[in-house]
Amino acid sequence: MAETLIKVDLKQSAYENEQVHNRWHPDVPMACWVKPGDDFILETYDWTGGFIKNNDSADDVRDIDLSIVHFLSGPVGVHGAEPGDLLVVDLLDIGAKDESPWGFNGFFSKQNGGGFLTDHFPLAQKSIWDFNGMFTKSRHIPGVEYAGLIHPGLIGCLPDKKMLDAWNTREQELLDTDPTRVPGLANPPFAATAHMGKLSGEAKAKAAAEGARTVPPREHGGNCDIKDLSRGSKVYFPVYVDGAGLSVGDLHFSQGDGEITFCGAIEMAGWVHMRVNLIKGGMAKYGIKNPVFKPSPMTPNYKDYLIFEGISVDEQGKQHYLDVNVAYRQACLNAIEYLKKFGYSGAQAYSILGTAPVQGHISGVVDVPNACATLWLPTEIFEFDINPTAAGPITMLDGSVQMPISPDIK
Amino acid sequence: MAETLIKVDLKQSAYENEQVHNRWHPDVPMACWVKPGDDFILETYDWTGGFIKNNDSADDVRDIDLSIVHFLSGPVGVHGAEPGDLLVVDLLDIGAKDESPWGFNGFFSKQNGGGFLTDHFPLAQKSIWDFNGMFTKSRHIPGVEYAGLIHPGLIGCLPDKKMLDAWNTREQELLDTDPTRVPGLANPPFAATAHMGKLSGEAKAKAAAEGARTVPPREHGGNCDIKDLSRGSKVYFPVYVDGAGLSVGDLHFSQGDGEITFCGAIEMAGWVHMRVNLIKGGMAKYGIKNPVFKPSPMTPNYKDYLIFEGISVDEQGKQHYLDVNVAYRQACLNAIEYLKKFGYSGAQAYSILGTAPVQGHISGVVDVPNACATLWLPTEIFEFDINPTAAGPITMLDGSVQMPISPDIK
Amino acid sequence: MAETLIKVDLKQSAYENEQVHNRWHPDVPMACWVKPGDDFILETYDWTGGFIKNNDSADDVRDIDLSIVHFLSGPVGVHGAEPGDLLVVDLLDIGAKDESPWGFNGFFSKQNGGGFLTDHFPLAQKSIWDFNGMFTKSRHIPGVEYAGLIHPGLIGCLPDKKMLDAWNTREQELLDTDPTRVPGLANPPFAATAHMGKLSGEAKAKAAAEGARTVPPREHGGNCDIKDLSRGSKVYFPVYVDGAGLSVGDLHFSQGDGEITFCGAIEMAGWVHMRVNLIKGGMAKYGIKNPVFKPSPMTPNYKDYLIFEGISVDEQGKQHYLDVNVAYRQACLNAIEYLKKFGYSGAQAYSILGTAPVQGHISGVVDVPNACATLWLPTEIFEFDINPTAAGPITMLDGSVQMPISPDIK
Amino acid sequence: MAETLIKVDLKQSAYENEQVHNRWHPDVPMACWVKPGDDFILETYDWTGGFIKNNDSADDVRDIDLSIVHFLSGPVGVHGAEPGDLLVVDLLDIGAKDESPWGFNGFFSKQNGGGFLTDHFPLAQKSIWDFNGMFTKSRHIPGVEYAGLIHPGLIGCLPDKKMLDAWNTREQELLDTDPTRVPGLANPPFAATAHMGKLSGEAKAKAAAEGARTVPPREHGGNCDIKDLSRGSKVYFPVYVDGAGLSVGDLHFSQGDGEITFCGAIEMAGWVHMRVNLIKGGMAKYGIKNPVFKPSPMTPNYKDYLIFEGISVDEQGKQHYLDVNVAYRQACLNAIEYLKKFGYSGAQAYSILGTAPVQGHISGVVDVPNACATLWLPTEIFEFDINPTAAGPITMLDGSVQMPISPDIK
Repeated sequence: MAETLIKVDLKQSAYENEQVHNRWHPDVPMACWVKPGDDFILETYDWTGGFIKNNDSADDVRDIDLSIVHFLSGPVGVHGAEPGDLLVVDLLDIGAKDESPWGFNGFFSKQNGGGFLTDHFPLAQKSIWDFNGMFTKSRHIPGVEYAGLIHPGLIGCLPDKKMLDAWNTREQELLDTDPTRVPGLANPPFAATAHMGKLSGEAKAKAAAEGARTVPPREHGGNCDIKDLSRGSKVYFPVYVDGAGLSVGDLHFSQGDGEITFCGAIEMAGWVHMRVNLIKGGMAKYGIKNPVFKPSPMTPNYKDYLIFEGISVDEQGKQHYLDVNVAYRQACLNAIEYLKKFGYSGAQAYSILGTAPVQGHISGVVDVPNACATLWLPTEIFEFDINPTAAGPITMLDGSVQMPISPDIK
Repeated sequence: MAETLIKVDLKQSAYENEQVHNRWHPDVPMACWVKPGDDFILETYDWTGGFIKNNDSADDVRDIDLSIVHFLSGPVGVHGAEPGDLLVVDLLDIGAKDESPWGFNGFFSKQNGGGFLTDHFPLAQKSIWDFNGMFTKSRHIPGVEYAGLIHPGLIGCLPDKKMLDAWNTREQELLDTDPTRVPGLANPPFAATAHMGKLSGEAKAKAAAEGARTVPPREHGGNCDIKDLSRGSKVYFPVYVDGAGLSVGDLHFSQGDGEITFCGAIEMAGWVHMRVNLIKGGMAKYGIKNPVFKPSPMTPNYKDYLIFEGISVDEQGKQHYLDVNVAYRQACLNAIEYLKKFGYSGAQAYSILGTAPVQGHISGVVDVPNACATLWLPTEIFEFDINPTAAGPITMLDGSVQMPISPDIK
Repeated sequence: MAETLIKVDLKQSAYENEQVHNRWHPDVPMACWVKPGDDFILETYDWTGGFIKNNDSADDVRDIDLSIVHFLSGPVGVHGAEPGDLLVVDLLDIGAKDESPWGFNGFFSKQNGGGFLTDHFPLAQKSIWDFNGMFTKSRHIPGVEYAGLIHPGLIGCLPDKKMLDAWNTREQELLDTDPTRVPGLANPPFAATAHMGKLSGEAKAKAAAEGARTVPPREHGGNCDIKDLSRGSKVYFPVYVDGAGLSVGDLHFSQGDGEITFCGAIEMAGWVHMRVNLIKGGMAKYGIKNPVFKPSPMTPNYKDYLIFEGISVDEQGKQHYLDVNVAYRQACLNAIEYLKKFGYSGAQAYSILGTAPVQGHISGVVDVPNACATLWLPTEIFEFDINPTAAGPITMLDGSVQMPISPDIK
Repeated sequence: MAETLIKVDLKQSAYENEQVHNRWHPDVPMACWVKPGDDFILETYDWTGGFIKNNDSADDVRDIDLSIVHFLSGPVGVHGAEPGDLLVVDLLDIGAKDESPWGFNGFFSKQNGGGFLTDHFPLAQKSIWDFNGMFTKSRHIPGVEYAGLIHPGLIGCLPDKKMLDAWNTREQELLDTDPTRVPGLANPPFAATAHMGKLSGEAKAKAAAEGARTVPPREHGGNCDIKDLSRGSKVYFPVYVDGAGLSVGDLHFSQGDGEITFCGAIEMAGWVHMRVNLIKGGMAKYGIKNPVFKPSPMTPNYKDYLIFEGISVDEQGKQHYLDVNVAYRQACLNAIEYLKKFGYSGAQAYSILGTAPVQGHISGVVDVPNACATLWLPTEIFEFDINPTAAGPITMLDGSVQMPISPDIK
């Protein structure tokens, strides 16, 4: 069995684990080193470091301090890696921690991060998903079961100082356009809750003050939340610093395109078994700016989809110009309305779209003025038939099972 | 064999065919009538009515008057269809006209419609694609051949007056925000080039003055340009007028998600064999606003993809807030840079992304401030290996084959 | 459009068409010539030359003289092809004749050829299948509709004299072991009904007396009845004579693995669009004895199967030694018993297994003494749910629709 | 996490584990009990109970006493199960034991069981396969790596006495037709090496004398070696005794259709996570004699196959009558010859066919006198291109790596 280079103890605070960090900065020391060709295992916390619990209250989702996320395992140094290389990562396998065969999904309160449909679902809600081997189901959302498309939401290499500065600069510029917006337009560095791995003292303080937050995906990959970066896929990451410094975390048991619920996919603590190799000078050879990847040879074979269209006319009937976000939001809302006819609450339907292996396609982006987006809902995940028929929908759910909700505290 | 209810003669002007129209208006008379359960065939012009020719000049792409599009066959009246029903359309088969086994793809000049990457490719360019049975290849773009995912770019039912007014109102409001923009933010009704089917005289003049342009997708479907609405799929269309009034046109032999080249997919004249049925009152039963559909049981099985990521930081390094359009544009540009390493010109690479069965996924829309989009390029369509290797790319093309380009006439 | 090199007139006897033949012999003159790289179209009769009609009687299936089959279009000569080469054939597209959008399936009487389950279904029966674009359904077998996996049942190159002699010798040796068996163990040359293309007079008589019957698949391919040799596939055929001499016929709209009903798949008249190329000396280079092929990039995506097992213990409980035929027969019989619970007659169930894109797998051949075979039945082809449930099967059919049957004439 | 009801200690003899047995007999006591709806984990030995070692000698494959196999974990009693029910088993997940991340494949000597191609590979050979997450590769067979289609080779319920007697009777009758054949036509009960679980004393002696050997698949399923009974599949087993008595073992990391190498697939020790449910009276409701099953929603997506045909003419040119075994053997031999052109030894090629997710299809069984079988080899498992090209095969292997072989001891 491959060696486990980073272990996490779910009973210990992530802040106490020196092989974990929650900010991007070139000064974060390597947590361990490997050679090209090595395969090894890294354990990870869930993205919140265990803040969200397996219970029936959404209070934790409401109350979480999001400045603490994401707790990443790493950075792993790779001998011989130099700026300009491509780090080739085979995600050989991914799983949940044995002692923790469950995950959570939820919506943040609009006052604490929100989500894609926060105007429609402004309060904190949560669902818990149990893992049964390859499959998952939730005691809060009846009638669905999926095979997990397990993947890391967040993976990438350390930025160099120049790239870090560019990130902080451009995000601050955006923030400055509307500094009081809730939720904020971006998340600037925030030293108070930074965990910089093995760094301590003044070096830590300096890096913490500059370290980029882990929320957005960026040139290095990072928090891409791409469901198809799943176990079995192969990823080519740009390298910016000597040793590359690969970190990973935010594991998801399953997620739909867009991770629309934001909190998040089906979030879990677990482990990643990976192998690393190098393509020397690969960034220039292939003109690579962002990571490229190849999907896994083994993914759920769901083939029977019901597909919902959305166009860039918003809920108020206002016409937007080729706006895929608006179009995808409409497709999602259309799917939610549809599922409600089968007895789901809107929140339950929203959760299904956020967690099932739903596809979101950019179907049309040139037919002025409407973008067209499609949401592909696999029908096979439902225990009953959701296809349209002349007879109309048969309501299988009686509404007795609902998702926990926690009102904001004023 | 099913009856061909609408025939088109490619040597005749589309304006002379009374079973064709190019605007949406409830007053367009039914071109023919069918009953629920019937299957039948409609022939169609290509979307430009034959303006673009099978030659090696892009002058026609530069010079086309886009107010003439799209030439649709229909409307087909369905006995018993009433507002509020769902019209269930089985696309039993789709093909090119026997005498016209080819299609075109191109980029409009930025001065005449542009396209998704018009700032990068501002001039008119064209490629011609020959159909060899299920497959297509182009004399202007070496090294690729695809199985066609044949579909209508445009299909839907007639709007009622209320919906038509809503369309015209909201689009005019958008247009008014920047009325002199090139290309325009929207296309208002334009009577001069309207073709209203069997309507004539005053009735025609009135409808032409109000008729919605066919460019954008809207609630009824319309110009969705969804590649997966392919032969074999089943579509559920909202019905707004008695008889439904189903029209179809703008056939594509193949297209990538987004139809990013705008002119367009691989555009062709052809025929659609379809069957219609009704779900009475289906819009309310299922909460349907936009069409929903089920994909075909038979589509290209391409499985080996190289996937490019893009984030919502634009070409100038400016940070945008969760903007999927910007992210998808970056993913497209990343793929183009990559393909250039194998000897393609940027224009050729752009054409491949616009015409091959490329997937565009909305991968992340909540990780503030960056949206993440992915472009899935099937590697199997290339005659050589485009995967990254330690050896670097092997350039198979010598640049001797290029796409026609036509400079703007000042 | 590619040129149609061989045309067939369904109103004319196949014997009158000089570009058609029904025996394998090196002396059959080339019907036409092409060059490597050419693509072209060949029209074909159905395998019986039109003997089986679109009606509701199985008399024609009972009465057919099987010595007349199969009517093949060809041979096509390929310039430059020499013995030892591989002829690479791209099946670019395949379809039914426009004037004949239907096919037939049936069981021969045990006295006239029988079939895989002839002991269970000893009498002539027939079903007619209508083609609706990509799909087919039968007025004799309710509740099923499939997307067609269209393919030629029979395709291959002319044998040389040495190979022909080997065929005739080994088949005669088998025949001699039980010469009076019904149905016969093999079919020897039979001049009376031979059609040798352009040959006439003495040359025809000589070749007709030696020409191998077209029934079995052999080293050259021939009547393989492999459903996956479908439109879009690429086949590498051994070449034995100068010019190769490629012939094709026996088109199938759809078929299950094994073609168990023998008469046969869904049999149709139609056309094949193909392209030919050569790999010089390819037989030795790749150690090729029988054809190899690559499947189509576009085939039905049916994914939800109900799989039936069979072992090599026969209907009488007798143990056979690792016999896949017995095992597959049991799997087929098990599937038929299952489908009868939903209201199908045994004959209807048998027809479904023979015509739908059913898979037959050789699952185990070493676990002494039982071979294990599996039959994969796609559940998505049924209009109702055939999966096992605690509630038991719901019978959707009332038995009012049955397949024509014709008793033997003593 | 689900409870592990049966544990196995790989350092302990399987004979010492009372929750393990190696014969089928209704008197084997239940090892543990569960209720319908329960999910639980069973650990298993590899089929030989650890006899085959992870080393570079095939002596163990040569010397094994095959009367000891297969060591099964169980029987698991299911409360409420009665004869005539269907036991519905969801294979929620399957994996290797953490301490044993490897498996073996081999060919038995013709003097000790042989295999499908034993006349061509008559001596004991072995290869060892390492598991790297989802993937496996062998130090004895370069150039291939597969995603594992993990499955139990052997799973089923206890027979009742009547069925057991029928098995023993019919197999003895076969054996009696050629009692001295090597390898034997069947394996009769053999008490000396029987392990009857918790049974002891006289009861054990009696059951051991009658207990059916576990080698063949039978009506209850048993040693089906069906690769598609993989993690994620759902199986419906006939129940013959009160409590059902489900046993499982012989786990495979990967296998090709037919398990042609016999020793066997990639054999491993591991665990199965499963859930059980009942369909009361399901055997009669659905006319079930042998198990039926539904494939997993998650299996390797290999799509690019090179397909080899074989017909029922044997290696000596002798014509057999519609014999699928002969046809499949020819297809296998054709594939081996092909792979040898790329530098593989015949034994290595044979091992690939036995262990990779190769499909074996019964393509034609009615075209007198030749059956046609096809072997589908996924090309994506190879690290180099194995498709035919005009250039001929490029030999990537230098022959320096070979499989261990052990000559028979006379």
